[in-house]
Amino acid sequence: MTATATAAEGRIVAADQELDTPCVVIDEAILHENIAEMAAFAASVGVALRPHMKTHKTPQVARLQLAAGAVGATCAKVGEAEALVEEGGVEDVLLAYPVVGEPKIRRLLGLMERARVIVALDSREAGEALARAMAAAERTLEVYVEVNTGQDRAGARHGAEATALALELARFPSLRVVGVMTHEGHASISQPEALEAAALEAGRALVETAAAIRSEGVEIAHVSVGSTPCSRYTPTVSGVTEMRPGTYVFNDNAAFRHGHLGPERCAARIATTVVSRPAPDRAVIDAGSKALAMDGSPSHAGHGYLVGHPAATIARLSEEHGVVVLPPDEPGFAVGDRHEVIPNHVCPTINLTDELLVVRDGRMVDAWRVAARGKVR
Amino acid sequence: MTATATAAEGRIVAADQELDTPCVVIDEAILHENIAEMAAFAASVGVALRPHMKTHKTPQVARLQLAAGAVGATCAKVGEAEALVEEGGVEDVLLAYPVVGEPKIRRLLGLMERARVIVALDSREAGEALARAMAAAERTLEVYVEVNTGQDRAGARHGAEATALALELARFPSLRVVGVMTHEGHASISQPEALEAAALEAGRALVETAAAIRSEGVEIAHVSVGSTPCSRYTPTVSGVTEMRPGTYVFNDNAAFRHGHLGPERCAARIATTVVSRPAPDRAVIDAGSKALAMDGSPSHAGHGYLVGHPAATIARLSEEHGVVVLPPDEPGFAVGDRHEVIPNHVCPTINLTDELLVVRDGRMVDAWRVAARGKVR
Repeated sequence: MTATATAAEGRIVAADQELDTPCVVIDEAILHENIAEMAAFAASVGVALRPHMKTHKTPQVARLQLAAGAVGATCAKVGEAEALVEEGGVEDVLLAYPVVGEPKIRRLLGLMERARVIVALDSREAGEALARAMAAAERTLEVYVEVNTGQDRAGARHGAEATALALELARFPSLRVVGVMTHEGHASISQPEALEAAALEAGRALVETAAAIRSEGVEIAHVSVGSTPCSRYTPTVSGVTEMRPGTYVFNDNAAFRHGHLGPERCAARIATTVVSRPAPDRAVIDAGSKALAMDGSPSHAGHGYLVGHPAATIARLSEEHGVVVLPPDEPGFAVGDRHEVIPNHVCPTINLTDELLVVRDGRMVDAWRVAARGKVR
Repeated sequence: MTATATAAEGRIVAADQELDTPCVVIDEAILHENIAEMAAFAASVGVALRPHMKTHKTPQVARLQLAAGAVGATCAKVGEAEALVEEGGVEDVLLAYPVVGEPKIRRLLGLMERARVIVALDSREAGEALARAMAAAERTLEVYVEVNTGQDRAGARHGAEATALALELARFPSLRVVGVMTHEGHASISQPEALEAAALEAGRALVETAAAIRSEGVEIAHVSVGSTPCSRYTPTVSGVTEMRPGTYVFNDNAAFRHGHLGPERCAARIATTVVSRPAPDRAVIDAGSKALAMDGSPSHAGHGYLVGHPAATIARLSEEHGVVVLPPDEPGFAVGDRHEVIPNHVCPTINLTDELLVVRDGRMVDAWRVAARGKVR
């Protein structure tokens, strides 16, 4: 629990703040607590913590994670890594995404001059192009094999398919296969009661795949799992060496689904103002899809949680309008009233803003630039 | 029709381009055609064209619209207007959104030093705060009354409610009620066969409301309607004086729904690369929700239209992955292959990127900065 809640209903920004909305506010105390807790958990189960930084894209948050003991960063794209190596103190980065295409491979080579870089791959084709470029540059690239443990997004299927791919990739002299990774996203979106079993099954499938690859003579030092919702389970599987949660720094409505978190652990909120009250059962807030993003929530109806107003529903978003459906006599929705919204999915929400306003004890104390915002390449 | 399609399937970027993906590419010829056609239509029905610039947020596009005869801009937020007045040659702007809160009112006063500004209002509360600030600054603010003709988002209900609000606002000496506006968004999302009737009904409701306000002695010079899908219908209602379409500059999948547009009129595409081909029926492209946005389409299954591949479906998005479900033997989805995606809803897509790459005859010729990207305040 945090000491900074400024009202019984759990808002983090003092009501008398003069704030231009919508904007993203971050409660520093909750952020620190979330970072410390995940670092302590990783240490307690003896796995390395390599947080996925797509969630925050912000150098200051990266530095907090590294200071708490993270071994390095996970990034989705080369551009995200470039920004966080440049400004966030990141010296060791896993690109958990295939690097495909000559322009991106050139940027990867540049990045390798400034940091240790590992790239996750799931195809011989992507590996071959990288191997050729690395050989030409007289470099060796460390590689994780991306393994599909059930999500059916990217990744070679766990077991024989992933093992065969690892052997193919290991044959390129300029590639060094050092690990396997999975993103057990299918477990994250499973029903809460099924989450633990699905996470453990994914972890075991990955560990078994690592063993199969090792039995063919390829040293697999790193067995890496992902996702905040599964973070209490998958890393506990014997043989897992690394975890890559992302969302935990802020948390969001998706975290509610899993029962162990409430708004008091959600560090990121969209501060918003009621701009219209056209009907007794309807208000309009100034946070629409360009502030909140359009992602749905597995646990809440609507497009975000209005802190302190569990019976109010953000029923529809257009670009700059959030249409709130109100129960009878709900207080606090006159034109000009302020609210905080916890987003359904915090990662795309952060990607919409240029800065995070940092709040300590209800007051703005800093503004952090989201340096890797929009870095999709 | 454009002469720039570089392949039978209608792509706009030549396949041999070395392009780092994902990125937004704009076909200059299609853009020019779309702008010219809407300007000609507005002239043909004798209404002023005041395009909504939330779609593009880009000074160069604003200048093209103004050069084609637009009377000024519509903007959603003060920040959007600031950027387009600063860089886009805009001298006359309708903020089609209530300006609420002291910080924003101060910025509005600054904007009024540099451009003619009209603000749309739907409440006495917002009007009173603005009136007080205008009086203190010895300024007069032109106001449109926002009228709800059926969308049930913001707006005072057409007829008696909107008339009463107009009279209340007109009593503030520092406000000058000069028009009424509606966004007939409910008509836009109606079934294609119901669109025309719904648009005409909304237009008539607005014109009747303007007449009722005039009969109370308030001069209503401007009767303003919105939305690209309704743009052929609502402006034809006798008494409408102004139209505010936005999406028409680029068009998107939503436009397909209404039957009169195909991909050859869609100027904005997301260029993307196949980064993974994990199964015969599944490929992964490097455009996810952080490149395409999460908005659904009323007309197409999935998260965008893969140009030239009508049987392929972008079935799922995560932040950086687009999971494409392929029919048997679909060609063109090997790792490294390039595609173009027409987004479901182009406005939030443009809001995710810092620049638009301009294509002429299949070649990059320019890059435009999306100067008002992310300006949600």
